[in-house]
Amino acid sequence: MIIDRLIDRITELENPTVVGLDPRIDYIPEEITKDATDRYGHTAIAVKYALLAYNKGLIDAVCDIVPAVKPQMAFYEQYGSEGVDAYVQTVAYAKTKGLFVIGDVKRSDIASTAEAYSNGHLGQVDIFGNKTGMFQTDFITLNPFLGADSIEPFLKNCKYFDKGLFVLVKTSNKGSGDFQDLMVGDRHIYEICGEYVQRWGQDFVGQRGYSSICAVVGATHPEVAAKLRLQLPNTFFLVPGYGAQGGSAADIAACFDKNGRGAIVNNSRGIIAAYKTEKYSGMSYTEAARVAALAMKAELQAIIN
Amino acid sequence: MIIDRLIDRITELENPTVVGLDPRIDYIPEEITKDATDRYGHTAIAVKYALLAYNKGLIDAVCDIVPAVKPQMAFYEQYGSEGVDAYVQTVAYAKTKGLFVIGDVKRSDIASTAEAYSNGHLGQVDIFGNKTGMFQTDFITLNPFLGADSIEPFLKNCKYFDKGLFVLVKTSNKGSGDFQDLMVGDRHIYEICGEYVQRWGQDFVGQRGYSSICAVVGATHPEVAAKLRLQLPNTFFLVPGYGAQGGSAADIAACFDKNGRGAIVNNSRGIIAAYKTEKYSGMSYTEAARVAALAMKAELQAIIN
Repeated sequence: MIIDRLIDRITELENPTVVGLDPRIDYIPEEITKDATDRYGHTAIAVKYALLAYNKGLIDAVCDIVPAVKPQMAFYEQYGSEGVDAYVQTVAYAKTKGLFVIGDVKRSDIASTAEAYSNGHLGQVDIFGNKTGMFQTDFITLNPFLGADSIEPFLKNCKYFDKGLFVLVKTSNKGSGDFQDLMVGDRHIYEICGEYVQRWGQDFVGQRGYSSICAVVGATHPEVAAKLRLQLPNTFFLVPGYGAQGGSAADIAACFDKNGRGAIVNNSRGIIAAYKTEKYSGMSYTEAARVAALAMKAELQAIIN
Repeated sequence: MIIDRLIDRITELENPTVVGLDPRIDYIPEEITKDATDRYGHTAIAVKYALLAYNKGLIDAVCDIVPAVKPQMAFYEQYGSEGVDAYVQTVAYAKTKGLFVIGDVKRSDIASTAEAYSNGHLGQVDIFGNKTGMFQTDFITLNPFLGADSIEPFLKNCKYFDKGLFVLVKTSNKGSGDFQDLMVGDRHIYEICGEYVQRWGQDFVGQRGYSSICAVVGATHPEVAAKLRLQLPNTFFLVPGYGAQGGSAADIAACFDKNGRGAIVNNSRGIIAAYKTEKYSGMSYTEAARVAALAMKAELQAIIN
């Protein structure tokens, strides 16, 4: 089961960190953007080239110290088909380096449409009779607002292709409360979401006690995380909001179980653009990313132990 | 304001229909798929070629009788970058034919990620200093589960570029009830969603009395539609679920105001794959699409008047 392999890799590296590959042109060092525009001009192809070169540097820098990366599709998709190609190639490259890849796509749709997303991101599409894997991510994030039948086509491919999901339960932004914190009787919507995620994941619990059908639980609401950790003993958490969004290492402690397991914490800007901060000045972007990832590992270890 | 122009075009054509461009390879006539595979083999490029050729035929067949098309991005995205290119080219072609284009993407994200989606789909992205429109859709659909701050970056581009949104309020699927029908005090979640959509749309109300910030309200829940129509007098509705999903013309009557305005009804399979049904046998796919679109127009007119 993929969740077992992810947990084992986290244990091996002693590092429950996922690096968010959310490239922005203004994060990319000038030597890369100059090379890209020299080759391809001020075009979307040059953007693709730059995103990919930047990501490859980051992946090489951290692949032996972190278990996973999480490309956020919006930062690629915004550049149209060239951007999507950079996403696909980033996923493929990360996998050759032994990283687990969580595609942060937060898709939501129903029926044959959900099936199309599921086939594209997790399964296979039919190209005139040839079954072909397209995005080939290990996990994707999903938004559950459309209900259980919107998740079903993804569960099917998770089963068949041994993939996993991270379903939004409580997001890290301020406005997450607008819907997720509403009370239905004596329960918050996020608790109801959590209950669904647990139910969807029942058939996917691996040997380490966690399910491949996981939840997104923001680092910025530690009291909520603590409650959900208790409510969902078999649900593994993806924890966004650490660092730039204001969540501290202490805040995320609540996401882990008593053995220091059960969660992986995302950091994007704080690693991939570390070289832009004073703390890492003078380092290359790849050196800074590695040092920042090791610093985060140490911070998380201090909390977990 | 774009909503005024859409409403005027609906009035001019006497047809509140949007054609869902949700191409599936098994809908595409053999003459097109054969041509595609003869040229490009069994490849994603052949899929792109086939999707685009099929869509162009459909667009040509209906562009003078319907006001809008709604490509569902999943059916393109599943084929990776080539599929996304077919989406982009479909949008561009539809616009040259005077159609409004609703990008059915149901995206949901926060902060700079939401901005990236907003810039890609509605606004402009920065390609090394060149501000460039990428997807250039007129409207997109959004999932509001992440809260008000997840919608804000889209409102900004709607203002600046005169675009519109369709925010999910009550979807057409059976499972929509799992979250959308939950009761918070004496109100359903879909009513709370509706209230947000109305509030987000306040500054976007045009001369015809409707806002460019619109709602998705499924045809399969007529009693809910009637309630929302009363609650949201300035909110224009996109109505999925007609035809294949079980909603009848009578069911969608509740989505329209007393002047027969305020909604546009989607039909995908029932138009784009009409030629596959017995009713239209012997017709080409484009003829069948046109005849089916005219039949739907007549049905809607009978209901509205």
